[in-house]
Amino acid sequence: MMHIGLLEAGLRGTIADVAGVTVGHCTLAQGAVQTGVTVVRPHAGDVYRGKVPAAACVINGFGKSVGLVQLEELGVIETPIALTNTFGVGTIANAQIRAAIAANPRIGREDPSVNPLVFECNDGYLNDMQALAIDEAHYRSALDACNDDFARGAVGAGRGMSCFELKGGIGSASRIVQINGRGYTTGALVLANFGRLPQLTIAGEAVGRALVSADASKVTPEQGSIIIAIATDAPLDARQLRRLAMRAAAGLARTGSVYGHGSGDIALAFTTAYTVSHDADFITMPPLISDARLDPLFQAAADSVEQAILDALLSAETVAGRDGHRRISLNDALKTRS
Amino acid sequence: MMHIGLLEAGLRGTIADVAGVTVGHCTLAQGAVQTGVTVVRPHAGDVYRGKVPAAACVINGFGKSVGLVQLEELGVIETPIALTNTFGVGTIANAQIRAAIAANPRIGREDPSVNPLVFECNDGYLNDMQALAIDEAHYRSALDACNDDFARGAVGAGRGMSCFELKGGIGSASRIVQINGRGYTTGALVLANFGRLPQLTIAGEAVGRALVSADASKVTPEQGSIIIAIATDAPLDARQLRRLAMRAAAGLARTGSVYGHGSGDIALAFTTAYTVSHDADFITMPPLISDARLDPLFQAAADSVEQAILDALLSAETVAGRDGHRRISLNDALKTRS
Amino acid sequence: MMHIGLLEAGLRGTIADVAGVTVGHCTLAQGAVQTGVTVVRPHAGDVYRGKVPAAACVINGFGKSVGLVQLEELGVIETPIALTNTFGVGTIANAQIRAAIAANPRIGREDPSVNPLVFECNDGYLNDMQALAIDEAHYRSALDACNDDFARGAVGAGRGMSCFELKGGIGSASRIVQINGRGYTTGALVLANFGRLPQLTIAGEAVGRALVSADASKVTPEQGSIIIAIATDAPLDARQLRRLAMRAAAGLARTGSVYGHGSGDIALAFTTAYTVSHDADFITMPPLISDARLDPLFQAAADSVEQAILDALLSAETVAGRDGHRRISLNDALKTRS
Amino acid sequence: MMHIGLLEAGLRGTIADVAGVTVGHCTLAQGAVQTGVTVVRPHAGDVYRGKVPAAACVINGFGKSVGLVQLEELGVIETPIALTNTFGVGTIANAQIRAAIAANPRIGREDPSVNPLVFECNDGYLNDMQALAIDEAHYRSALDACNDDFARGAVGAGRGMSCFELKGGIGSASRIVQINGRGYTTGALVLANFGRLPQLTIAGEAVGRALVSADASKVTPEQGSIIIAIATDAPLDARQLRRLAMRAAAGLARTGSVYGHGSGDIALAFTTAYTVSHDADFITMPPLISDARLDPLFQAAADSVEQAILDALLSAETVAGRDGHRRISLNDALKTRS
Repeated sequence: MMHIGLLEAGLRGTIADVAGVTVGHCTLAQGAVQTGVTVVRPHAGDVYRGKVPAAACVINGFGKSVGLVQLEELGVIETPIALTNTFGVGTIANAQIRAAIAANPRIGREDPSVNPLVFECNDGYLNDMQALAIDEAHYRSALDACNDDFARGAVGAGRGMSCFELKGGIGSASRIVQINGRGYTTGALVLANFGRLPQLTIAGEAVGRALVSADASKVTPEQGSIIIAIATDAPLDARQLRRLAMRAAAGLARTGSVYGHGSGDIALAFTTAYTVSHDADFITMPPLISDARLDPLFQAAADSVEQAILDALLSAETVAGRDGHRRISLNDALKTRS
Repeated sequence: MMHIGLLEAGLRGTIADVAGVTVGHCTLAQGAVQTGVTVVRPHAGDVYRGKVPAAACVINGFGKSVGLVQLEELGVIETPIALTNTFGVGTIANAQIRAAIAANPRIGREDPSVNPLVFECNDGYLNDMQALAIDEAHYRSALDACNDDFARGAVGAGRGMSCFELKGGIGSASRIVQINGRGYTTGALVLANFGRLPQLTIAGEAVGRALVSADASKVTPEQGSIIIAIATDAPLDARQLRRLAMRAAAGLARTGSVYGHGSGDIALAFTTAYTVSHDADFITMPPLISDARLDPLFQAAADSVEQAILDALLSAETVAGRDGHRRISLNDALKTRS
Repeated sequence: MMHIGLLEAGLRGTIADVAGVTVGHCTLAQGAVQTGVTVVRPHAGDVYRGKVPAAACVINGFGKSVGLVQLEELGVIETPIALTNTFGVGTIANAQIRAAIAANPRIGREDPSVNPLVFECNDGYLNDMQALAIDEAHYRSALDACNDDFARGAVGAGRGMSCFELKGGIGSASRIVQINGRGYTTGALVLANFGRLPQLTIAGEAVGRALVSADASKVTPEQGSIIIAIATDAPLDARQLRRLAMRAAAGLARTGSVYGHGSGDIALAFTTAYTVSHDADFITMPPLISDARLDPLFQAAADSVEQAILDALLSAETVAGRDGHRRISLNDALKTRS
Repeated sequence: MMHIGLLEAGLRGTIADVAGVTVGHCTLAQGAVQTGVTVVRPHAGDVYRGKVPAAACVINGFGKSVGLVQLEELGVIETPIALTNTFGVGTIANAQIRAAIAANPRIGREDPSVNPLVFECNDGYLNDMQALAIDEAHYRSALDACNDDFARGAVGAGRGMSCFELKGGIGSASRIVQINGRGYTTGALVLANFGRLPQLTIAGEAVGRALVSADASKVTPEQGSIIIAIATDAPLDARQLRRLAMRAAAGLARTGSVYGHGSGDIALAFTTAYTVSHDADFITMPPLISDARLDPLFQAAADSVEQAILDALLSAETVAGRDGHRRISLNDALKTRS
């Protein structure tokens, strides 16, 4: 696959290059039900007890994700990050609550409640969203499947997603930068479900225009979205992580997106450099990278996001779903043209 | 009940004084399950088709409400406003989705998805939240019960709520102001579940300190919250409604709150002066009140919120819940002292 | 003076109880020119080199303060905090730039530029703002005057300010709280220039209504503002300081404010617990107080702000200014009534 | 010049294609002083009396612009838009205040004050910013020069600016789109002063990497910024204009920017479709374009911004400034290479 930018990728070329981060999927692919759940685990422990510093950036807020209000106030996440379709959010939030209670029986009693964190895109073109096919077991299944080696493309939450009117889904990438004489790894995972074909730009090339068939002149409004998770092992606080999350907008734009009205474009960034203990009287942070040294991380975030979107497009296979709808993969589209 | 401020109340003295606004409850009160659902309907029609201009203000973001991301971006709500306990949010969101689909079968297919709007407080002191007792039928039941004459106190979502370590719950109030020679009605409905007893201030008087028993020196951290819905028939846009919502912070503060860390304090303001059609090519607004004329509305919002909190405290009865926990009503507390 | 709330004040009862914080004034009081400059120095060193962690909260944004964009992004201030009248902002910003260059000749050349931080209220009722009487020397004069013992009332930037249609100006207060077994001091300094007389509430009592003369029925729109600076020696980061700043809204509301449309109500909070070096590769923070332990600080902030506003009213003398305008002091108003 | 995207440009190919919008410069170019002022007039009338609906989006907040606090609260601008160097902001704000008073002698007396609106970039590489060479007359001169035919490149505020380590400055572009059967014109004007050479991307091509000389391996941190003004004749409110402003981030990213730490990247969008009268009791808006129809405007904004940055690079001439510093133009750089 073509390499975006001048920075080096990590070994796996995925978000799992950030040590400790794993990803799991649960995929539903039967007839009109083409959907699923993807979970990004920021670390192997209990995220409620060892909360993860994080921040989100809402690039375009046409979206139904849950958990962002508390994240903005407190700067930590306390569950794994779940991705699913728009109408699966409530159910997956319930699953996260039950999982947190199971591990921490004081939650909602002596301890505060837990903040579910579920992101979504609308996969209704391929998937019969009205079936509300997602159930709580799918969350546990995706969580159990978390691994540093994971599939991309039309899997998990990405199963039914469309991107540039082609098949979208899950993509991932990573970049390594040197700051203050030390190497830091930054990775992105995307749930790519946005864009119209004429916008598609690959490494600067207007590929989409070339793929548009003669009769494609009718413009259908975008009902997509992209969810972007960025992980880094660089020590940053929530304010800095919000800055990092914002750079997803740059990587996204380079693929041709103008953050369409109907596209819920949301980026989340978290660090694995430390955790915030649920019980502690104090928050103890390692020395944080000075803001004046962040530019390499910003470049890594933007490049990872662009690469991850490309990875989603190139990893996905052609999928047929409800009512005869079908999204062909970029690979198949390119073959057809040539 | 004592009247807050110099402005006149509406006929009912509730949010239903804003014409078209109705409220319904579904109350669960059996043993350790003391919880429920409250619905505020902004108008009698289909809120997805006739979207309601609205804005939210997060006073303190320790909360798990859903729907705020899209509300901030688009400035409208497209479902009735639902209130419930923290662990009921996902289920009520599902219920809202199903209700919207039932009324609009194109949702999630030809039409975009729908944005559930569910607010919550943690009623875990009286209610066994871990039971996840809320189910989707409770939403429909509360919705069907919507009426301009509705109960307050320990009902609906307010059933298990605590406020200033007394019994809290649902309260409501209204105020009428003259602007540009016309009368406008503003009303508030609160789900009051915040505060510690020594903070309680009623119409400026430090009532709470007087009620604290000698052994009350141990301070327990607040795990409360307050949800505040403000309705007005004044023609405002989303930017102005956000300004109005912020004035809830003033009314709240006057009751003694300092927006405690663990208290998810969120205000929503909406107008009934016009709706935004789902299908229309244009948004047509009536002439909006100039910002320079808004002060009376700001006063009305703050006074209504203070009055509504007082109403919640004075309307609530003493309730016993899980594990022998019990919250006495303010009325009972005042009787005991005197 | 009456003591607000249950928390103990520091020795001086001002923001200077936070060790290292000093305040200085330059007062202009000649005929129609009734204005000035007040400076809050967060520490005795060079604030550009030892940047101060801080955050602002815009309660109502009808204001012309400068420096908030960069503060929000970077979470530090790099000049002393300057207060003046609305039309003096540009000149004081220039003075801050020149002072920073004088101390750091690389600024704007090898080093980045400096972010001036100037807050303002409109003192145009007493002061002839159109005279643009503030010049750069007034900033240096106020800066040189910084001391832990400083005047309040109709001095410095407070000289021409009005509050509740009485004489307003500079007020200050402090509170001490115990967290994790350690004492922390929090102080507030306000430039109070907001409110209409019927709103004035002192320690819960509706004093203003009693002071309104029979002919005061005509309501004039508020053109005021309040600037609130909160200092603490508690170790917090910018995110937490923003939470602290928001609690100013509670203290402000208790005095009767509903954050009027024309009132630019802005709160800034900073910590003296550590500084951020201009040159360092890393930001090293001490252990921060856990968010779950912040409630006493929130109470201290709200109480200090309410007390500081009262201090401004009670410290101010009656002042006559342009065109025969005159604001009587609260003390004089109370005497007249009794 | 190469045309970005598929949308058609307006006649002039500048922001002045939006009827009523004019631009003027005052350029200082003598030895070490290479700086200036640029003014964008949204309409020919008094902007204080006929306020212009607008909104800003802070892409990266390392910047010292003034006026954004009130703009966010009220959604209008009330002066022309001024651009200058970082240390000229205070002086230009003063000039705007004086100009507003001259036209409206009640300002700061019977009427509220005026909100200056000044944006800045750091031109310190070429220009001796420490000289504080900007004075108030330069604002009036730029204002008087406003015309629908205006120069771009190394003029006005753009005189001393650098972009991708080449000569930057003022650029402009426009696009026309059809919505609801009507044509709307959107234009952008940029003050381009950001980026490092290896990032430079022109219409998708990594031109910058090819231009980097062998010894360019040392990375200097970016101290740039970009200010982006977007005008449209489409009827939008402030909330929608903020959405439009955000799309500047997409156009900017396509040129290679990742919104570097030290780059104050701020976009402002305004509409000429209506004004908000200073005195009116009501705000009367024309029917606004529905959000669901905004995608063509979003595309127009992104494309205009990318094109305007390219225009700045290609319009600029090579400039020598302080201390032997010199920025060669893109045209010269391309010639040298070929």
